[in-house]
Order: sequence, then structure tokens, then C-alpha cells
Amino acid sequence: MKAAIITIGNEILSGMTLDTNAAYLSQELGKIGIEVVLKISVGDRPADIGQAFKQALAGTDIVLCTGGLGPTSDDITKRVAVKFFKAKLKLDKGTLEHIHSRFAKRGIEMPACNRGQAMVPNKTEVLFNPEGTAPGLLFKKAKKILVLMPGVPREMKAIFAGSLKERLTALSKGMDIRVVTLRTTGIAESAVSEKLSGFEKELAKGALAYLPTHLGVDLRLTISGKNLSVIDNKLNDLSEKITGVLGHVIYGKDDQTMEEVVGRLLKEKKLTLTTAESCSGGLIADRITNISGSSDYYLGSAIAYSNILKEKMLGVKSQTLRLHGAVSKETAIEMANGVRGRLGSDLGLAITGIAGPGGGTDKKPVGLIFMAVAGPKGTVVEERRFLGQRRHIKESAAQAALNMLRLYLLK
Amino acid sequence: MKAAIITIGNEILSGMTLDTNAAYLSQELGKIGIEVVLKISVGDRPADIGQAFKQALAGTDIVLCTGGLGPTSDDITKRVAVKFFKAKLKLDKGTLEHIHSRFAKRGIEMPACNRGQAMVPNKTEVLFNPEGTAPGLLFKKAKKILVLMPGVPREMKAIFAGSLKERLTALSKGMDIRVVTLRTTGIAESAVSEKLSGFEKELAKGALAYLPTHLGVDLRLTISGKNLSVIDNKLNDLSEKITGVLGHVIYGKDDQTMEEVVGRLLKEKKLTLTTAESCSGGLIADRITNISGSSDYYLGSAIAYSNILKEKMLGVKSQTLRLHGAVSKETAIEMANGVRGRLGSDLGLAITGIAGPGGGTDKKPVGLIFMAVAGPKGTVVEERRFLGQRRHIKESAAQAALNMLRLYLLK
Repeated sequence: MKAAIITIGNEILSGMTLDTNAAYLSQELGKIGIEVVLKISVGDRPADIGQAFKQALAGTDIVLCTGGLGPTSDDITKRVAVKFFKAKLKLDKGTLEHIHSRFAKRGIEMPACNRGQAMVPNKTEVLFNPEGTAPGLLFKKAKKILVLMPGVPREMKAIFAGSLKERLTALSKGMDIRVVTLRTTGIAESAVSEKLSGFEKELAKGALAYLPTHLGVDLRLTISGKNLSVIDNKLNDLSEKITGVLGHVIYGKDDQTMEEVVGRLLKEKKLTLTTAESCSGGLIADRITNISGSSDYYLGSAIAYSNILKEKMLGVKSQTLRLHGAVSKETAIEMANGVRGRLGSDLGLAITGIAGPGGGTDKKPVGLIFMAVAGPKGTVVEERRFLGQRRHIKESAAQAALNMLRLYLLK
Repeated sequence: MKAAIITIGNEILSGMTLDTNAAYLSQELGKIGIEVVLKISVGDRPADIGQAFKQALAGTDIVLCTGGLGPTSDDITKRVAVKFFKAKLKLDKGTLEHIHSRFAKRGIEMPACNRGQAMVPNKTEVLFNPEGTAPGLLFKKAKKILVLMPGVPREMKAIFAGSLKERLTALSKGMDIRVVTLRTTGIAESAVSEKLSGFEKELAKGALAYLPTHLGVDLRLTISGKNLSVIDNKLNDLSEKITGVLGHVIYGKDDQTMEEVVGRLLKEKKLTLTTAESCSGGLIADRITNISGSSDYYLGSAIAYSNILKEKMLGVKSQTLRLHGAVSKETAIEMANGVRGRLGSDLGLAITGIAGPGGGTDKKPVGLIFMAVAGPKGTVVEERRFLGQRRHIKESAAQAALNMLRLYLLK
């Protein structure tokens, strides 16, 4: 089975909007054995959209389109498809009720132009959109399938995952592919590569990809073949060998995030956590609370951005701030102990540093960070230095602090 | 001037990695009058990369490539280009020193394989990479230009902005384009569209695009032509008319973020802010502290995730929590007054709600939010309801709370 992806909208073509939809769909189709062989981006012009439909349907079995289904006048995809497939529009009552109820839930009257989104072509199947007002539309023509979906990623994903994926899976008879990602942090790409140099021959060609970001290096292992159990065995074997060499620098697998891993450890050990953030400004708390159920182990945080609040909220001594500065080992330790003691948790995680671009000195440059963990096994502190822009430093620092907590919990 | 963009890497082709680079480059090239006419994505195979070079150079004047310049064995772009241009590799001392100093700053020994990144082809110009170890490489051949850049977006952007953009600007003689984005929040796309229905004829065809996200609807106005002052006048005129109709639902222009606008208002009015977050779990603090210099007006936050901390850190009465619940108008008001009074700021912004997926009831469903602002003009409170997943609700809630503070400051 071969597929094409068409993204529609001037904002994609000009780069104003990121083509996240094509990436998501490539990835999801790959998982169910459907190979994407063509990617087209066109603007909001009828002729170009029609031409893209024609070209994509000629070379593939499945064409997935995103974009141009909104309620406003620059949304023309449905109009073009209706003409292309010689269909007619009719009112779909279920869709109209769904649109009404979405506005009602928010306590807003439905604007008149949203009614047009409930008009669907007579030759299509309507795919329910739980996240928005424009439904997906599935056209069939001579064993080929063309699907229109809204361009809003959340809505497209809800339609794909909700009903489309299952349909396409049944259609697919392709090869099996298995992918495992081992997520590392606190180690450079080149250092991982050197540690794994002994395995280069064992790894099938192209099977290992390094995906570095400032949060760590993801190692993606891909194995494909006809026999699923053979593939699975190969993958498990390689995955275990790599884990054996790299050890605790691997914090998780696949889509697992650091906050998920840390959350699981806290839950297992029945420990509660509070945090004290300065330079990361709430990003650690934000990440921890992205995990549903985090209220079981996470009590809260003192974001002590100013020195006064470091004293007031955390009990950092003014003498410590005067002698060693807000960005120091001593302050980090007092913050971790302070938040743990004052807010009453088993563990306290603290971070202080210079996110920049201002505030750096020769002795204490932008990117200098001190992190501390206070808990039943005592208080530990660590110094790190990061390069880059403000946001980048915040993200790197938050990741390092959560990783420090993870390693503390594993001890 | 026409350009092509090539993104190299199996992870782009399979959708594992988002093609943010192509979008960024399209956009930046558009700004300097260079039109992108071709986008190609290929995997990590030498023949495919060579074929992409050939095809792209045949149809355009400028080819920008990203990806495949890392230190590991799956990075082959430079090798293919050296062969393609019949060049030879030589050591570039400046680049080697730069790589050494990057590792030294982090207190790490340079791994041996990074030395390869300092080997550059003899027929190229080296473009400095302030954010990483792989420099950009500019090849020239018969008035055409091909540029290799690393695939890490931050590094690619640093090279483009640092030296490449200026060079390409000089080359370009294209039409002028002006783009203005008016950013709205708290209003549905369809409602904006209805308010602007009187202008549809005035707006040049395709000049207005609606870019909706859950944080608001961006309105992008694009005007192009030969005469820059004519374009500017048209754009200003339209922009003013739209602003006149929509008023305060427009919070900013172009890349301005809500936290930037709120920060500017606080600075102008010489007011300090503290925040008290429950359901948004630090996201508001994180956004505020993304602004460099935010320590001038932002003192910190109490992330009172648990009820105990709502009492302990913010002085919310246990009676209020018992009678009205943590997610209520009454609690939001006490949180705003509490954070302002206890932490000593001019303004207090508080938010409490149910981010889900658990914790909702019939009376208080997932997505229900109360926000309050306490300040010199009294305390105000607002109820809102959002739909969607946990992260989505957190982001919508944080945006709405910051917008509420903005409107309070504008009163």
C-alpha cells in the first residue's frame, strides 16, 4: 500500500505554518505498514488543489489531505473535492448537532457561517471530529481513497486516531516494522557514538539513528521484515545490549518523557515532591503537572524569582545570599531544604542559575546552574553549564534538574 | 531569484522529525524576496542526496540543504557534496578551535569524532556556527549557490541569521512583500470573520488569512508589489481599519506574545506581579519568565497544587475550600488576594480549575476554570470553560489568565 499526503494552505507553502500534519501522518502510516511516497504542498487556489488530487490519486492507493475545511471564505478544499468527485452537498444533521453542542458547552451562540461545516458531500463517509466543528470526509473512487481532514493538528489527529487509522490498518498488508527509541540525557551525541562503536557492525545498516536535541540524544532502532517474532527478537536483543553499555544515561523508551519517568518513580516509592525554582521560572512545575495524576505525588512549588521571595518563601538566609549570591551551591542547598521543610514533602528539588541574556559575569556566566535535591538520603548539589539562548537554557536546566532527581531516586 | 530547499534525513522522510527547517527557510527567504519553488526530502542515502542536489540546482539559483552534518557515521551530506563538487577536504583551524572551546566551556574533553567536523572542502566558504560544532558550507558553481547547514534548527538558524541572510539579500532583486499579523484571543474564528464581513471586498484577494489555534486567531495580512511605500500605506490602512473594528481582542502584532505585551504594560505602569497557580501548574510563571528582564516586574509564584498548600502558601481559608471547593470563584479570589498580600506585589493573578482527564463532575466538568486578578483597582474574577486534552486546557487557561491581566491593566 502506498500513500500520498497533501497539505493545503498558503501558510504551509510559504513556511508561515509548520507542516506538522504531514510528519504525523507519515509516522502513523509507517506504523501500520503504509509507505508514504509523495508529499505535496499547495496553496489555497482551486486549480492547484484539483491538480494535486489528480496527481496523488494517480500514483497511490490512499491520499490524505489536511487543511482548508474551516468556516471562513479562504477555506475551499471541500468545494474543490465536491467538484472533483462530481458530488452534491447535503445537510448532515448529526454534524450540525455536534457543532451546536460545542458552542453551547462554551455558552456561545453558534455563528451562522459554522452551519456550512455541516453540509457534506453525498458520496462520502463522515468521520467524526471530537475536537472541532469540521468533520473528516472520506471519498472512494475505483478502490482508491481520498480523505479530507481539517488542518488544525489536534482535530486531524482526533479524526485519524478515532476512526481512520483502524480503517487503513485493515487495508494494509505491508511489511511489519518495529521501532524502539531509547532516550538518553546528560551525554553528548559523540560520546554515545564512541560508547556504541563496538556495535556498529551488529547494527543492521541504517537501523540506528541518532536524534540529538538540547534535552538529550534519542537513539532510534528500526527493524523491518516479514516475520514479526524475528523482528521483535532482534530488536529486544539490540535494545538490551545498548542499555547494558549505556546504563542510567537512558531514562526512558519511545515517547516516555522525563516527567513521566520521575512521576512513576515517586509513585512507586510513595514519596511526595515539592520544587523551588528560580531561573527555570516554573518550567519544572509545568512539566511535572503535565502528567495526569501528578497531584498524587506533587504538592506544589515556590517560584522564588526575586531574592526577597527566596528568603520569604524558602527561608534562604540573607547572609547566604550576601556572601555567596543567589546563584551558588549554598543557595541551591538552602532552597531544596527550605521547600522540603516549609511545604512539607518527602523530597525537595531546587534550581537557581542565570538564564540570560543579561546577568552574567566572568565568574558566573550566563548558563551557570546549581541544582539540589533534599530528601531522606540527604542533600546533594550539582553545578552545570549550558550554552544558548534564554529559552534553551531554561529547558536544558529543567531537564537536568529532573534527571538529577531521577538519579537520586534510583540510588 | 528562485530557491529550493532540501531536507536530508530518514527521520524527516518518515515523519519522525518535523521539517521545521524548510518552514523557517521558506519564510525567511520570502521576506527577502526569494521565492521557494521546490521542496525535496530525501533519506540518508548518497545516491538520493546527489540526485536531489542535481535536480534542485537545475531549476533554481539557490539551494539550501539542512541535515546530515553531525559527527556520527550516519551523517553523510558533506561527503556526498565533496564528491559532487569534486572538492577535497582540508582541516580548518578556526573551526577546530571553535569546537575545542565549546567542549572546554562545558568542562568536557572533545571526543575524537568531532575533529571530523573541522575538515572542510577546499572550494567552499565556511559559515560560522555560533550554536554548535558543524559549520555551514557554501559551494559556488556557475553563478549558482548550494549551502549545507546542520539539521539542528537552532544551529541552522544561527548560521542563516548570522551570515547567510545578508549574502542572499544582496543577491535578491525580487518584489517587495510586507506581512503584518494581528493577534487576537478570546474570540472564535467565525466571530472574527463575521465582524470583518464588511471588509471582504476591500481586502485584496488572498490578502487576509485566518490562522486559528487554541490560543487565539491570528489574522495575517499580506501585500506585495513593486513600490514599497504604496505597499506600506495599503497595509497600514487595512491594519488600522481591522483594529478599529476588533479593538481589545487584538493583543499584539507579528511575533509578539501575550507575556511580552503583559510585561511591557507592567513595566510602563511600574507595577510588580506575583501569581498563584493551581491547574496551570507553573505554565503562567514559565511564560512570564521567558521574557528577558521579567525580574524587573515579576517576583515569583506560589504553585499551590494541593489544597494544603493553598492554605499554607496563600492563606485560602479551609472553610472556603470546604464550602465552595478548590475550583470556585471564592477560592480564586482568595488565591489572588493571598498571593498579592503575602508575597508583597502590586498585582496578584490566580487560577484554579480542572485540567483533567480525571477530577471532573457534572457540576464542575473538566475544563472549568476560575481566574482572578487582585490589584489597586480591586479584585475581579472570571469563569471560563475549555474543551480538549489536559495540556490543551492548561495552555488555553494560561493564555486566558494572562489576557485577563492584560485587560485589567488596560482599564
